[in-house]
Amino acid sequence: MADDSQIRIGVLSCTNIVRKVSRAINLAPNATVAAIASISNSIEEMKSFAASNNFPPTAKIHGSYESLLEDPDVDAVYFPIPASLHVDWAVRAAQKGKHILLDKPVALSVYEFDQIVEACEANGIQFMDGTQWIHNPRTAKIKEFLTDPASFGQLKTVQSCFSFAANENFLKKDIRVKPGLDGLGALGDAGWYTIQASLLANSFRLPKTVTALPGHVLNDAGIVLSCGALLDWEEGVTATIYCSFLANVTMEITAIGTKGTLRVHDFVIPFQETEASFTTSTTDCLSEHKTMNEIPQEACMVIEFARLVGEIKSRGAKPDGFWLSFSRKTQVIVDAVKESLDNNLERVLVSGR
Amino acid sequence: MADDSQIRIGVLSCTNIVRKVSRAINLAPNATVAAIASISNSIEEMKSFAASNNFPPTAKIHGSYESLLEDPDVDAVYFPIPASLHVDWAVRAAQKGKHILLDKPVALSVYEFDQIVEACEANGIQFMDGTQWIHNPRTAKIKEFLTDPASFGQLKTVQSCFSFAANENFLKKDIRVKPGLDGLGALGDAGWYTIQASLLANSFRLPKTVTALPGHVLNDAGIVLSCGALLDWEEGVTATIYCSFLANVTMEITAIGTKGTLRVHDFVIPFQETEASFTTSTTDCLSEHKTMNEIPQEACMVIEFARLVGEIKSRGAKPDGFWLSFSRKTQVIVDAVKESLDNNLERVLVSGR
Repeated sequence: MADDSQIRIGVLSCTNIVRKVSRAINLAPNATVAAIASISNSIEEMKSFAASNNFPPTAKIHGSYESLLEDPDVDAVYFPIPASLHVDWAVRAAQKGKHILLDKPVALSVYEFDQIVEACEANGIQFMDGTQWIHNPRTAKIKEFLTDPASFGQLKTVQSCFSFAANENFLKKDIRVKPGLDGLGALGDAGWYTIQASLLANSFRLPKTVTALPGHVLNDAGIVLSCGALLDWEEGVTATIYCSFLANVTMEITAIGTKGTLRVHDFVIPFQETEASFTTSTTDCLSEHKTMNEIPQEACMVIEFARLVGEIKSRGAKPDGFWLSFSRKTQVIVDAVKESLDNNLERVLVSGR
Repeated sequence: MADDSQIRIGVLSCTNIVRKVSRAINLAPNATVAAIASISNSIEEMKSFAASNNFPPTAKIHGSYESLLEDPDVDAVYFPIPASLHVDWAVRAAQKGKHILLDKPVALSVYEFDQIVEACEANGIQFMDGTQWIHNPRTAKIKEFLTDPASFGQLKTVQSCFSFAANENFLKKDIRVKPGLDGLGALGDAGWYTIQASLLANSFRLPKTVTALPGHVLNDAGIVLSCGALLDWEEGVTATIYCSFLANVTMEITAIGTKGTLRVHDFVIPFQETEASFTTSTTDCLSEHKTMNEIPQEACMVIEFARLVGEIKSRGAKPDGFWLSFSRKTQVIVDAVKESLDNNLERVLVSGR
């Protein structure tokens, strides 16, 4: 049985990312895996998956997503399903009173995502997207540096990229290159991280305009395999992002302020699981910073999500709206890059969206 | 007296950069400072400048550039004068048979630079622009990595930036922010380095198109203080450059290939004078590389320049055309960024220019 103070999380599907996140739930003292449902695995396969991933023996096996959403012993649901299914299942989950941990991209468009927003707000649901690096203690330290007027000054530009060289199998079969599934390709996947890095560096303000850059690569079905974009805050403050399934693994943030520079070389997944580093420099000083995290960043994410759900469940707190808003802004920029790509790289006005 | 095998270099002006380059000439065993001319300093001031910068006692003092160019004991001239004067003086120097070490930007436009090209070619002149980092032994090692199909693969993107936060005095009075002098601003200065880094990473091939990015900053006279651009080679291969007089000093190259990634954090001026480092990474390996140079990179530049001049002088060799061509390609891209900035950020076709 779950400890009463633990948030009971149901997970969907038996994919690799569920292995990682269920391990994180196991590591989080305030959460437990309460149930699993898969539509492409038999009950036997799910049982074996649960056992091999150390689910608690109390974890229930559901033959359908509907059944898991009806389960009164599930407080929240982790959704690592294709983006094309998000709006439908997230809205249903919210209507059933389940809190939501949703993988990125959170939807195929802001239009879709706003239906999730509405359902969450109407039902008092805590929402969070499943981006893990934001919860690494290193990120808090990075934010501290970027918002310190004495050492960083005012942001001028932030350049981030996330690429990895996908193998042939991925490029043929992964859901991230299929129009009917995660139709946003590298932009909704790797690009999501770079957009959030740009927002983080700009105190989560939306840029005024977004422009896709020449040189993008699409597959035969029109899915983005590689692209770049320029975000413009219109006061001489810009960000460039680059995301690709076709280039060696690189996870870089370079943020330049009037007084300081930040460099991170492994922002998405730190080279080591329990420590992470970044460098800062000013005109006369280059410093290496290291942060330790006893548990991996994905468990930090689960702890924060479960903490917020716990506040709602046990104290009647309101959901923390930051996470919905952060995901929405990210999706607004994803949409704008897509719109620019679809319209001959025209500049897209996003302020007010 | 200069050793007969030494190339005798005349320098123009008494500026800080002449202090740095004349020190480099002194450090180069195959070159010597043979003369100085300044149009804004008295003979007495030049004598004192020569003494305080350890010019050989044989170095001649000329009251005009013309007089220095007539000096039969000068083989080559270093020109750290405003870009608006380059075409006039470089063409005159070539016509007088003087080899040319010309500071960047080499001209205000390719149209102007082609007059220098023509004069050099007609008179058998060795040309080199005064960009120093290209001559650091580290750069040869970087090139080796970038052209190694086994460890780097094929280039996908290269992102480079060079910024420094100029003080108020610079922003008001430096020649680099004056329309009549170095009218290309941060683009012709800091941007020059980032363009050469992009060309180096692409085996010195010109891109197909160049597009300036939104978010540039101009001063009241219309001079670029900060801008970015995208270079597109049209096979999914791109470069982004960022140059600024308004952001903390940052000198970054990140080049991503299909198999490897290169990172350099101090490409323009290494943090240390006699050693330099860079990192390379592949999927499973991160390596730090260090190169040593007994003499600073600006002396490496002088040695190479003097070596080429020496080949012409003593063996009747032909000038090495690589350097003219490299400078010209850089200027083509500078012009294209400027053209794009001047035309609402339109994409500019450069192939064939």
